Amino acid sequence: MPGTRLDLDRIRAAQALIAPLFQRTPLYPCDALADVLGCGLSVKLETANPVRSFKGRGTELVTSLLQRQGRTQVVCASAGNLGQALAWSGRRRGIAVHVVASRHAPALKLDRIRALGADLDLVDGDIEDARARAAAIARTRGARLLEDSLDVETCEGAATIGLELAAAPGIDVVLVALGGGALATGIGHVVKALTPGVEVVCVQPAGAPALTRSYHARQVVNTDSIDTIADGVAGRHPIPEVLSDLLVVADDAVLVQERSIRRGMRLLLEHAGLVVEPSAALGVAAVLEDPARFAGRHVATIICGSNVDPADHRRWVRG
Amino acid sequence: MPGTRLDLDRIRAAQALIAPLFQRTPLYPCDALADVLGCGLSVKLETANPVRSFKGRGTELVTSLLQRQGRTQVVCASAGNLGQALAWSGRRRGIAVHVVASRHAPALKLDRIRALGADLDLVDGDIEDARARAAAIARTRGARLLEDSLDVETCEGAATIGLELAAAPGIDVVLVALGGGALATGIGHVVKALTPGVEVVCVQPAGAPALTRSYHARQVVNTDSIDTIADGVAGRHPIPEVLSDLLVVADDAVLVQERSIRRGMRLLLEHAGLVVEPSAALGVAAVLEDPARFAGRHVATIICGSNVDPADHRRWVRG
Repeated sequence: MPGTRLDLDRIRAAQALIAPLFQRTPLYPCDALADVLGCGLSVKLETANPVRSFKGRGTELVTSLLQRQGRTQVVCASAGNLGQALAWSGRRRGIAVHVVASRHAPALKLDRIRALGADLDLVDGDIEDARARAAAIARTRGARLLEDSLDVETCEGAATIGLELAAAPGIDVVLVALGGGALATGIGHVVKALTPGVEVVCVQPAGAPALTRSYHARQVVNTDSIDTIADGVAGRHPIPEVLSDLLVVADDAVLVQERSIRRGMRLLLEHAGLVVEPSAALGVAAVLEDPARFAGRHVATIICGSNVDPADHRRWVRG
Repeated sequence: MPGTRLDLDRIRAAQALIAPLFQRTPLYPCDALADVLGCGLSVKLETANPVRSFKGRGTELVTSLLQRQGRTQVVCASAGNLGQALAWSGRRRGIAVHVVASRHAPALKLDRIRALGADLDLVDGDIEDARARAAAIARTRGARLLEDSLDVETCEGAATIGLELAAAPGIDVVLVALGGGALATGIGHVVKALTPGVEVVCVQPAGAPALTRSYHARQVVNTDSIDTIADGVAGRHPIPEVLSDLLVVADDAVLVQERSIRRGMRLLLEHAGLVVEPSAALGVAAVLEDPARFAGRHVATIICGSNVDPADHRRWVRG
């Protein structure tokens, strides 16, 4: 069993706390796309739910536990998907949700956070600036600060995806988008615990490489700036605890170019009929950049979000 | 219990014969789209599987039974989705599949039928011409002729969707695409048997109105021509047995205009992130054409297929 902050029994128990509509998501082979990529390919579709991303698994877990504790307020920084999911889960349980996001986040995500009834603060900078502001708000209000990837519930919620993957036969490699690290450490923990022969490869944009560089350096490497369309995985300051976990459960972490992300989005649209946000195309992008590595193997990739402004999507898939 | 050719016990037994990846499909509310439509809206997503349509439920059932009977050949006429699903299910069980389709069917569907290893014959006319040719081939070869909507397995396979809908609370109306009638009679039978208070409304394009006209006339009405982008539901000659069943289980059947279908496709893309083929937008189109009828109610609609050529989709959602 991997030695991380995560716990397999808690992850199994989490399934009872997460709304069923975020679970048992489709996992199916896409032969048409596999033919183009030259490897077996299955997608784990985490977008077919009311918040269009995997984040509901974690926020359901967090808000369930807050409710048990009698807490009524939660604050988070979000690139957009976490805030939307937290707003959804909080509304369902009568917990007030406050989200801090960058004003450069996709309008679609910000609109949905507001529509779900959360308070939304916008900051001028990026996700790291939003994190600082969220921490300040939590202190002022005495609200629970939910920190994505640092708070183990966000990792263990995502880890329930791993339980579903580990139950599927025939997978050789799991390709996971790498941002803050909750998704990768969550899935990685379960896959390594239950199906250790399956390779776990994390994929990050070359324009936001902090955690991947940290993984290879085996110590935190901060970066100065972010330059990627994959807004959902953009960060500059890796969390040391997350890096420690990642070093235990990931077999590799790779960086991909923007043009590969866009091409991945296009291929997913054309050959699988899926609208995905850039983060969700990272796995396909990794295969495109290193086809020999995956040739003849069966790859599963997590389609982690579809919250993309339609005009952006049109432009990027044309590119 | 509705008096149709379908049987609830057989439908329940069918679940054991259908590959799990065609079942327990996502059913979830789309608040963003609901806000635009002015009613509650949930989608039942039948496209997140290897054939991108609901047809796999029926073809899994048919080929399972053929296998038990020791039969090795099956022929069908198809607008494209049935053929693709039958090819998938037949390949899995070593049953040779022969599909007859119109050469005007979407290239995407025809390409996938071929890629799945089926023999494919193209006819010059429409789906009705394909039906005649398929019957002739079946006679010549001694193969099983699978007739969509007439063969009860195609209805009872689709009916397993109804079991999943009937288990969900809070639905007032189910909107079902109407073509040959397998989907509508299948779902209608189960919904009326298990949740008779839920209204079942069938939706057909005004450009292919034969079965809807027949429903209202209470006798078969044939039409001369087809003029719709909704290739999956186009037919001219309703099957009498299907009409009889439909009269028992459907509360209503309505026709919608092409512009509403295109707008439905656009709204599903923009507010739910879903690429759908025209047939799958019929439910949303029905709400668009008669919002007062659905205002304040919770509508579930079946997203029955996503096999649409990307260039066609782009053009139609722009329209």
